[in-house]
Amino acid sequence: MTQLAAGHLKIQQDTIPELNPSYRLLLGPGPCNVDPRVLRITLSPQLGHLDPEFFAILEDTAHLLRWMFQTKNEMTLCVSGSGFSGAEAVLCNLLEEGDTIISGSLGFFSGQIVEISQRAGANVVNLETELGAPLEADVLEQAFKDHPEAKIFATAIAETSTGLLQPLAELERVTHAHGALFVVDAVCGLGGVPMNVDEMKIDACYAGSQKSIGALPGLAPVTLNERAVQVIKNRKRPVQSYYFDLQYLHRYWNGDHNYHHTACSNLVYGLREAVCIAMEEGLEARWARHQLNGDALKAGIEAMGLKLLTRPGYALSVLTAVSLPEGVDELAIRNGLLDEYNIEIGGGFGPLKGRLIRIGLMGYNSCRKNVDTVLAALEHILPRSGLTPQAGAALAAADAVYTR
Amino acid sequence: MTQLAAGHLKIQQDTIPELNPSYRLLLGPGPCNVDPRVLRITLSPQLGHLDPEFFAILEDTAHLLRWMFQTKNEMTLCVSGSGFSGAEAVLCNLLEEGDTIISGSLGFFSGQIVEISQRAGANVVNLETELGAPLEADVLEQAFKDHPEAKIFATAIAETSTGLLQPLAELERVTHAHGALFVVDAVCGLGGVPMNVDEMKIDACYAGSQKSIGALPGLAPVTLNERAVQVIKNRKRPVQSYYFDLQYLHRYWNGDHNYHHTACSNLVYGLREAVCIAMEEGLEARWARHQLNGDALKAGIEAMGLKLLTRPGYALSVLTAVSLPEGVDELAIRNGLLDEYNIEIGGGFGPLKGRLIRIGLMGYNSCRKNVDTVLAALEHILPRSGLTPQAGAALAAADAVYTR
Repeated sequence: MTQLAAGHLKIQQDTIPELNPSYRLLLGPGPCNVDPRVLRITLSPQLGHLDPEFFAILEDTAHLLRWMFQTKNEMTLCVSGSGFSGAEAVLCNLLEEGDTIISGSLGFFSGQIVEISQRAGANVVNLETELGAPLEADVLEQAFKDHPEAKIFATAIAETSTGLLQPLAELERVTHAHGALFVVDAVCGLGGVPMNVDEMKIDACYAGSQKSIGALPGLAPVTLNERAVQVIKNRKRPVQSYYFDLQYLHRYWNGDHNYHHTACSNLVYGLREAVCIAMEEGLEARWARHQLNGDALKAGIEAMGLKLLTRPGYALSVLTAVSLPEGVDELAIRNGLLDEYNIEIGGGFGPLKGRLIRIGLMGYNSCRKNVDTVLAALEHILPRSGLTPQAGAALAAADAVYTR
Repeated sequence: MTQLAAGHLKIQQDTIPELNPSYRLLLGPGPCNVDPRVLRITLSPQLGHLDPEFFAILEDTAHLLRWMFQTKNEMTLCVSGSGFSGAEAVLCNLLEEGDTIISGSLGFFSGQIVEISQRAGANVVNLETELGAPLEADVLEQAFKDHPEAKIFATAIAETSTGLLQPLAELERVTHAHGALFVVDAVCGLGGVPMNVDEMKIDACYAGSQKSIGALPGLAPVTLNERAVQVIKNRKRPVQSYYFDLQYLHRYWNGDHNYHHTACSNLVYGLREAVCIAMEEGLEARWARHQLNGDALKAGIEAMGLKLLTRPGYALSVLTAVSLPEGVDELAIRNGLLDEYNIEIGGGFGPLKGRLIRIGLMGYNSCRKNVDTVLAALEHILPRSGLTPQAGAALAAADAVYTR
């Protein structure tokens, strides 16, 4: 073999430390800590991506995801990637060069619909809302009047950058009245906030494994109804991406399991287990649990004299965005929690950088213990930033929610 | 909340069986069974994708991957996805609509360079070789003469569909003589076959975590040199994909760690550990181990009267493609191994479907025990397909390789 090349480039072995990650309580915008059952089952023996046993596991997982999405859509599967891989798969399969899409950009995450669609060659009508406020139906109505050619309206049910729960019923009505496809980003919402793909007439929806579903990151569940599937089948040009081609992925997950890519069996095991856990709990109970713990956290936050970013009535249960008073150092608060309490929370993105903290209570992490823990930690950390929460007020306010 | 929708769509809980995957010996074309150290460390506590501790782990992992690629390339990172996600990231960052790429299509996998590039809007000059034979430099020379505008030549160092080790030195010389970029698919090769990105003057290279590197699937290591990076920086249009945008990914992995997507900490832990294990072994020792076990397997296969698909002198150490005589049922052999021995091997793709079996010995799985195990199992299974290997001949032939 003439190609044999010696390992000339050396590395100092002692420059690579032993891997000992801290044990964090992950109360940011996701990932959350997974149920120990999920982690344990992740260690089950590996299966090849073309093993008949694995095909049965894929089918079970798709079946479970249909339940979680509350849909009968045949095309329900996972993209092997993060939540954005699901967004890109849905958008670049539905869009062709020159198509028009209206984006309900509620913040950083749903705002990425703009960039993903533009890169796919689409014309984007960008409806940006005031941060923390929902998109109103009349704004969408006007956009459709100005752009009757629009093929898709896409927005998020749960915008994690601002903690917003976007009401969808009116937006769906307007979208379908104009004959467009109704596409919903549920990356942070699925499994945590009330949603029902079929009843809400969502044509295509994408999610992320690591948020309210409560699995590890690395899989993006997506579901498309027959109308959306027909749009893909009637494309004039192939989808720009092989990796994100939903017809190939559907065939691999739900059809004859023809090879498309090497799915990670262990990640699929964990996602399957997370949805089984949700099924044991029940969807309504799970939504109610996220609502209760989110309410208790918000009561505690407000009792400390802090304000929510989100407009009243539109606050998301699974993620609470807290505006900081002028001059308060967001990073100091986050680092205090991280370094002294091993608690991770999130900061602000883009125009909100440095101006807010974001606390997630998702999946396994949405529990009373975590609400009390983070409130108690904040009560100790905030005074260093010049804030003066009244001792015990936060926990008392949270307690009142639990006992109301 | 007007959006509350009840969980009308029920699922029969007892239709979802307990998850108990069989314990397979994975001797297909990847994934392989990972070292127990890799699986164990995968269970380390989760870290958020924006945790400073995780940033250090990303930097260590990139550093380790530079060693494995044998490169000083700054832009060395992982795409969160399978090997094809790495292929697509490299190709769609380097290619723009209307560019010409010459593909050295050695079989199914390097053949996908064609589809990925066409979907990205490129003109593809497809140099298909006879299956099992390498691409000759004069064929490439002629293609460049016919297509002087070609911007990229891309092929694989290790084609798993045919078990081919492609010599690269002459192809590199021709490619660079014509001013094009030299792109190499090392999905199956990296960590198993002799390669050295800098010495071999490879401009861009992509790999897969689950093959000879010996980690779980889900990460695609890629590396690009300064020349390739400049091509990306000088693009006229943005990369078609947000998820695969290598400049964003590079900034997240190696720069200021600005948010791009939610990487899975646990998968990164496992990949980091796999490369640490390779470092303890040493690259030359690791390449030699794969060569020795591959040689022993091939000796055993030939002693059973079977033929290798690959042209003599070009056989890949990490994967052995075995041609089956006319009338022998490939699936019966594979199912026999799977059902009775819990051993997975691979079959043929495309025109080779039903005509060959493929046996991988990659990473942790490349060891004498597995060579003997699969040969012994084949000796028992093959007679049912009308083949009559001489009893004990395969093991004796393998033994002779180990004791030569």
